[in-house]
Amino acid sequence: MTYNKISADVLSQINAIVGAENVLSIPAAMEIYSHDETEDLVYYPEVVVKPKYTEEVAALMALCHEHLIPVTPRGAGTGLAGGALAVNGGLMISMERFNQILEIDEQNLQATVEPGVITETFIEAVAEKGLLYPVDPASKGSCFIGGNVANCSGGPRVVKYGTIREYVLNMEVVLPTGEVIWTGANTLKYASGYNLTQLLIGSEGTLGIVTKIVTKLIPKPTFDALMLASFTSNEDACAAVSAIFRAGVVPSALEFMERRGMEWVIKYDGINFELKDGIEAFLLIEADGSNQDVVFADCEKINEVLEQYNCQDVLFADSSAQKEELWRIRRTMAVSVKSNSVYKEEDTVVPRAALPKLINGIKEIGSKYGFESVCYGHAGDGNLHVNIIKAGMSDNDWNNNLTNGITEIFELTVSLGGTLSGEHGIGLVQKGYMPLKYTPVHFAIWKGIKAVFDPNGILNPGKIF
Amino acid sequence: MTYNKISADVLSQINAIVGAENVLSIPAAMEIYSHDETEDLVYYPEVVVKPKYTEEVAALMALCHEHLIPVTPRGAGTGLAGGALAVNGGLMISMERFNQILEIDEQNLQATVEPGVITETFIEAVAEKGLLYPVDPASKGSCFIGGNVANCSGGPRVVKYGTIREYVLNMEVVLPTGEVIWTGANTLKYASGYNLTQLLIGSEGTLGIVTKIVTKLIPKPTFDALMLASFTSNEDACAAVSAIFRAGVVPSALEFMERRGMEWVIKYDGINFELKDGIEAFLLIEADGSNQDVVFADCEKINEVLEQYNCQDVLFADSSAQKEELWRIRRTMAVSVKSNSVYKEEDTVVPRAALPKLINGIKEIGSKYGFESVCYGHAGDGNLHVNIIKAGMSDNDWNNNLTNGITEIFELTVSLGGTLSGEHGIGLVQKGYMPLKYTPVHFAIWKGIKAVFDPNGILNPGKIF
Repeated sequence: MTYNKISADVLSQINAIVGAENVLSIPAAMEIYSHDETEDLVYYPEVVVKPKYTEEVAALMALCHEHLIPVTPRGAGTGLAGGALAVNGGLMISMERFNQILEIDEQNLQATVEPGVITETFIEAVAEKGLLYPVDPASKGSCFIGGNVANCSGGPRVVKYGTIREYVLNMEVVLPTGEVIWTGANTLKYASGYNLTQLLIGSEGTLGIVTKIVTKLIPKPTFDALMLASFTSNEDACAAVSAIFRAGVVPSALEFMERRGMEWVIKYDGINFELKDGIEAFLLIEADGSNQDVVFADCEKINEVLEQYNCQDVLFADSSAQKEELWRIRRTMAVSVKSNSVYKEEDTVVPRAALPKLINGIKEIGSKYGFESVCYGHAGDGNLHVNIIKAGMSDNDWNNNLTNGITEIFELTVSLGGTLSGEHGIGLVQKGYMPLKYTPVHFAIWKGIKAVFDPNGILNPGKIF
Repeated sequence: MTYNKISADVLSQINAIVGAENVLSIPAAMEIYSHDETEDLVYYPEVVVKPKYTEEVAALMALCHEHLIPVTPRGAGTGLAGGALAVNGGLMISMERFNQILEIDEQNLQATVEPGVITETFIEAVAEKGLLYPVDPASKGSCFIGGNVANCSGGPRVVKYGTIREYVLNMEVVLPTGEVIWTGANTLKYASGYNLTQLLIGSEGTLGIVTKIVTKLIPKPTFDALMLASFTSNEDACAAVSAIFRAGVVPSALEFMERRGMEWVIKYDGINFELKDGIEAFLLIEADGSNQDVVFADCEKINEVLEQYNCQDVLFADSSAQKEELWRIRRTMAVSVKSNSVYKEEDTVVPRAALPKLINGIKEIGSKYGFESVCYGHAGDGNLHVNIIKAGMSDNDWNNNLTNGITEIFELTVSLGGTLSGEHGIGLVQKGYMPLKYTPVHFAIWKGIKAVFDPNGILNPGKIF
């Protein structure tokens, strides 16, 4: 695809659409838009624009469609796969001014929200009404709900409450041609033609720009309990995960963390936690519900299972403050690992009983290639984030040989029935690995779908495939 | 699209692929394949074929793709929108011999099942392992799980456990060109390119023929309670529905039934039930969980809500036999209504708090056009099945004027934030109403997607749009 640069004429039209005060074109002003949370990648757009209304987004898209200017939609820039990087320059449309919760409909347990609302802001707003929106990625304090939709983001509570797919009912979307549609209806069930809502979720901003989101809400559980269990081996901890479900309990979170992740959290985040010798892995387990006795009974059942898997200690959080402290360990782990070393983060997902094989295999691959790894993630979903640490690898090996090691990790993931990404998306940095799982037939279908929505290929080009 | 007839040469190739004993071409033998459960529509295919293996389906599709022969995939023929009718003749591929449960994986709480397995057979097989597959349409005793996938079928338990979208993880699919793909991975989370699993669900057999389905399973709740509440007005019953959720309870079923539906069940199904004067509507409400006290506490909360909405009586089922009897009332209602009168069934879905407006509006439209109606359905999801009864309408009005009345019902549904179908699909009989909700942009996208999968337009043509 050959794209055009943004000419002075086009820039003046952009200014006319949104007002010059919402247009940035000097590199210094665009620095924060030149990267996301993916390693050290930097790509500057030519122009950043901050529309406020759907009609403005539509006018911008129509203009870029006409002039063959690449467009990169942008949420909060917290992505981990480079999906919001302007790899072809062009226009970046930042959705940060789409920051309104338009309605919380307590009659229908639905909300209508703009994509630039911070996820945690939305969660707190509905919680005030006694309602739960359970999609809470680790970055919930800074990520946008629109970015969550684009990446099919998860978080710890997916294991009980389901992914964002189960909460987004309908969306207003600006298509790459500038046309505006609602993808579906504000209903809990839908069997009326190909489901465009579901197709757009996880499409990483390549098929349209979401401008309104209608979500389902559910009654908020009134009790929860949180426990941290420690193990002398990763394998025991991972094996306990599927046993908990087989015992008939569905926890509201079931997170795995390796010892080294915990060490780095203690070192970089100032958490006060005594790490005992011999402990190699942790499970952070939450149960919730509307009845305290039942929540405690669930915890007891979980505890019985943990004992069968050589669990060493179980720490029950006995206050809100302690719960928050334990959650902070899990949430800051990515940042702590990042502080410590040159690293690359890969997002693997397998059927949950395959976790022990996956984690053992990752360590073996690390030995072969000379890298270390810190693994943690949403073990209840079989979703393991693999942080590859440069450690003793030479720069040459890191730069030239590591992709072979990552390839082996993904080959293992696929052989276990899994796939490349459970919740981070493919974006820019994972697309080279896609042929490990998908055939030319898949690529042909994906590209065909892309061309239906975006005949000129201007929207977020170079992502996914 | 111009299609070819099945020539003697093509027929001999079909015979060679599946064996002559699995090919029907005499009309008398094809009678049951000429209709589904949609009113009185009859379309004969030229040939019915019953493959057993994916490779056979692939070879049949490749043959028909090459020779431009229309193909209609066929489940159990229980559809209510004409989606499995061979409206262009051609080849019907019946999936009835794909009837194996291939694996119930208790480690991962997943199963792999062929599309021709009867839904109830599958539900019972996993229940024996203490597991729940909660997608149970009223026709569960005869419908196929493959048909459920094609139509995004629901049933009473969607309200708590989610639709079939939340249980299908991955599918093996034969594409219209004869190529075979797995749509995704056997994982609970998935963020690896456009989600073809979700796109195929609800596509009514127009994008591919499903040959294997990997489903999620969950621990089976160990207790449930069922109650039947009676009201003197439809409006009170419908208004109670959203109030139950606002009280913080998510029932595992919340079904609405009009008095007349109950009368006809009593008349045609021999149910022993005393229908009191003045009662106009019923809610059938189930609560379930892993703790009896909590289930009873939920029932008490529900009961308190019901009292606020002028509920007259609440009958608690006190035995399994009584629960089954109450469920039988709901499940046989469609058949009973059908036994009584010439009718048309429409499937409407709205945000649940809009149910009172919907049902009142339907009655007003009925008065205007001269038809009567019996409404029932999954009120907890806002999903109302509207059975339009010919009653005093003249044949001329029924044949020529009724579509205007149905149009008004769907216009009302759409104006309330809803859509045409919640779980029956669009198929043949609803497609004329699609422009009431969807724009030419939607149709262009849908047709574009169809062409990506099926460039020759041979798979289930004439359906949805």
